[in-house]
Amino acid sequence: MAASPPYRQLEEEFRRLHAFRGALATLRWDAAVMMPRGSAEVRGEQLAALETECHAILTSPKVSRLIDRSQANSQGLEDWQLANLREMRRQRDHALAMPNALVARLAKASARAEVQWTEARRTQNFADFAPHLAEVVALTRDRAALLGQHLGLAPYDALVDEFSPGVLTADIDGMFKVLGRRLPMLIRESIELQAVKPSLPITGKFAASKQKALCVEAMKALGFPFDRGRLDESEHPFTEGMAGDLRVTTRFEPNEPFTGLLGALHETGHAMYDLGLPAEWRDQPVGRNRGMALEESQSLLIEMMVVHSRPFLTFLKPLLDKHLGVSGPEWEVENLYRHLTRVHRSSLRADADELTYQAHIMLRFELEQSLLGGDLKAADLPAAWNAAAERRLGLAPANDLEGCLQDIHWAVGQFGYFPAHVLGGLIAIQLWEKLRGDQETLDEELARGDFTGLFAWLRQHVHGVGAKMTVQDLIKEATGRPLSAAPALRYFEAKYLEPR
Amino acid sequence: MAASPPYRQLEEEFRRLHAFRGALATLRWDAAVMMPRGSAEVRGEQLAALETECHAILTSPKVSRLIDRSQANSQGLEDWQLANLREMRRQRDHALAMPNALVARLAKASARAEVQWTEARRTQNFADFAPHLAEVVALTRDRAALLGQHLGLAPYDALVDEFSPGVLTADIDGMFKVLGRRLPMLIRESIELQAVKPSLPITGKFAASKQKALCVEAMKALGFPFDRGRLDESEHPFTEGMAGDLRVTTRFEPNEPFTGLLGALHETGHAMYDLGLPAEWRDQPVGRNRGMALEESQSLLIEMMVVHSRPFLTFLKPLLDKHLGVSGPEWEVENLYRHLTRVHRSSLRADADELTYQAHIMLRFELEQSLLGGDLKAADLPAAWNAAAERRLGLAPANDLEGCLQDIHWAVGQFGYFPAHVLGGLIAIQLWEKLRGDQETLDEELARGDFTGLFAWLRQHVHGVGAKMTVQDLIKEATGRPLSAAPALRYFEAKYLEPR
Repeated sequence: MAASPPYRQLEEEFRRLHAFRGALATLRWDAAVMMPRGSAEVRGEQLAALETECHAILTSPKVSRLIDRSQANSQGLEDWQLANLREMRRQRDHALAMPNALVARLAKASARAEVQWTEARRTQNFADFAPHLAEVVALTRDRAALLGQHLGLAPYDALVDEFSPGVLTADIDGMFKVLGRRLPMLIRESIELQAVKPSLPITGKFAASKQKALCVEAMKALGFPFDRGRLDESEHPFTEGMAGDLRVTTRFEPNEPFTGLLGALHETGHAMYDLGLPAEWRDQPVGRNRGMALEESQSLLIEMMVVHSRPFLTFLKPLLDKHLGVSGPEWEVENLYRHLTRVHRSSLRADADELTYQAHIMLRFELEQSLLGGDLKAADLPAAWNAAAERRLGLAPANDLEGCLQDIHWAVGQFGYFPAHVLGGLIAIQLWEKLRGDQETLDEELARGDFTGLFAWLRQHVHGVGAKMTVQDLIKEATGRPLSAAPALRYFEAKYLEPR
Repeated sequence: MAASPPYRQLEEEFRRLHAFRGALATLRWDAAVMMPRGSAEVRGEQLAALETECHAILTSPKVSRLIDRSQANSQGLEDWQLANLREMRRQRDHALAMPNALVARLAKASARAEVQWTEARRTQNFADFAPHLAEVVALTRDRAALLGQHLGLAPYDALVDEFSPGVLTADIDGMFKVLGRRLPMLIRESIELQAVKPSLPITGKFAASKQKALCVEAMKALGFPFDRGRLDESEHPFTEGMAGDLRVTTRFEPNEPFTGLLGALHETGHAMYDLGLPAEWRDQPVGRNRGMALEESQSLLIEMMVVHSRPFLTFLKPLLDKHLGVSGPEWEVENLYRHLTRVHRSSLRADADELTYQAHIMLRFELEQSLLGGDLKAADLPAAWNAAAERRLGLAPANDLEGCLQDIHWAVGQFGYFPAHVLGGLIAIQLWEKLRGDQETLDEELARGDFTGLFAWLRQHVHGVGAKMTVQDLIKEATGRPLSAAPALRYFEAKYLEPR
């Protein structure tokens, strides 16, 4: 039995939606990478018009009618079509909870706040940014309340659900508890262990053009398609677009090459996920990524498990030499590995290691709940941030650039996003444990820059699944076990408490 | 009496349309300047979805109903609102003639053809581009027939009307006749005159980065707002966007600095027109430019009348010195003037002077009518082009890069566009004659790089009028006389037959 005409029509509506979202991706990339600063107002109007249109498609009576009629005739649908219909309904339900006017106001406010965030970083003046953040927070609070009401969730849970479908604040709290019990000891012990044999410092001056050439060669080796993608610079690394037109950015530090490289390769992890999504479903909801937590697992897997490994560094060493002209004992594989896996307390999330990273997320998890709850005013964020950093990380940021101005996410209205990072890390570790068991020659492959086996496994078990299953089912299917913090504890212990 | 609610609603619909068009502008700019080559297919889908949406707004029963009701209540509307309503109706009428499916197919075909045009220029292989051009021509032929049928015009007249509202092929023919009678003699005599005192050749190597810095300083002097605009490189100079986010491009030749500079300043003429449009109407039809012919008059006025003048070159000389480090007799004002106003026969329209330019346009005017009429197949274009160039210009292009691959316009479906260039030139000259009469100290102002008087006049008489009047009324209002070829004959004679 073939798919019913209403279902076919639904696919057509979502194809149109996909094209608008692709246009939005390019406009957002342009805003962050190319757009002159004074054009934020005009761009805000364009983004708002497009987001309003996307919202109008999802909430149209026509789409709801087509969903009902497809549901009634669902016996003719195949597996993927059924899953697609479920994802269409899910997107519709999320959208129905949000009135058009609020969507448009948030889009405009975010566009303005994004520009002011960039400006505030330049002038190091948080006060100019605060009212714009406050506006985004107030509108997000309205959004969360409406969303929660509609989905039967607490406001903050409703935001978390957007990024990590089906995950609740309580689930995250549970994971945090298991991790939190062991982490302080792990951090302390690993710092002590590493102090015995410290890594040699990495110093020098590295021109952005040379760092970029290094990134491009490493990205090509991983399989990033430069005929359908770009690497550029922006204030904060990100990936926009989709398979067919992938836009990755990073930012370069002149004094060391790893900020730029790790940013680019982290984002390449995102891009490779997008690239591996089921091509025949690429313009349908079931062919898109399975939410932020899984997205983040794919970038963390590349950055933390692949790139921060001795085999990968063996492959990287000659590239560093070629592009940066570096040599000497500090550039030997073992020293690079020690340098990159060094546990240290830093104010910047982007500079954090895997262990202290958890503290960075907990801090944000706590502060964004306070901002949205109204206990914390945007203007008071710097003081609250600094106090929380002191408490969670054991150090206060030197300035707001290293404190509350370090992330772009809140400026653009991404609340409920940060917990997806923790979850992403746990997913990455559990997948990695299984992947290494399945692929016995992985280390040798990575050492010679052969990533085909790695991505073949990820495509089969993760990328190619798209949004066909829930995150939980996907993990169970891929690893044979439900998602838990246990693999993470094993992984951290083996990696950071190894005898040196 | 205040504007009626239906009229207010109409403005809201056109505001949305304006935002989508702005998004389209950025996506087109990106496609030409930033997009990786392999992403054309995906971009084509996005452009098609957006153009379809624009078309859907204009052709919606809702907009037609609102136009009828605003019309019925028009006694409460002020001048500008009435003109806006007339322009809304005009856009609606044009759109109603075009079915959605054809709009989408043309958008996709053009996106593909644009990429293939760029590729064909790189590989110098017209044959690979021909089928893509043929597809665009076939779809444009359908478009012209439908449009003509709807507007009661011959198919080609209907296309001309899009770029030069209210102008017919017969009007253009009339102008050509007057000009054509005198031109051959003018060209011959000016070449003879100039041969007596030839200009010294301009030679050297000029890095793109230095040429760009020169362009930026000259553009800034003219008033181009770099906080709301950019200058980039592309295969062919163009301007996209609008006041608030203006994207100008040019292309640099390493062996001489004037291709890049004149391209950038020509486009700056377009940009300054956009910038001077009535700000309070910027997102409404009446606040947009008055068609291509007038657009082109503003770029030609800057390029041909301002930049190709001794006073401007007096201002430019120290900038050339500063950015390119050039000096010597060939860089003196009088030699630069002779160099730039030299009449010569060239295969490239972009390199043509004001006089031979007319022949370039006549050639295109003739060939595009043959392509659309079906007398000429896309695959046979190179031979037909070369023959026409031989006949009209007295020389055959060395290759397709200097022949039928030199312009992007046909690839992106711009037929009926070229005649707007002739008309634009005539308008520019007639405005320039009046402007110089009104502004007695203009030469001294230009010589010291002061363009405020120039643009004040243009804003008052041209830019600020938006689309409130027809081109004919605007010219009559600004110059006191109807548009004719007479000022052009006076201007050409004074400029090119001056005793040297």
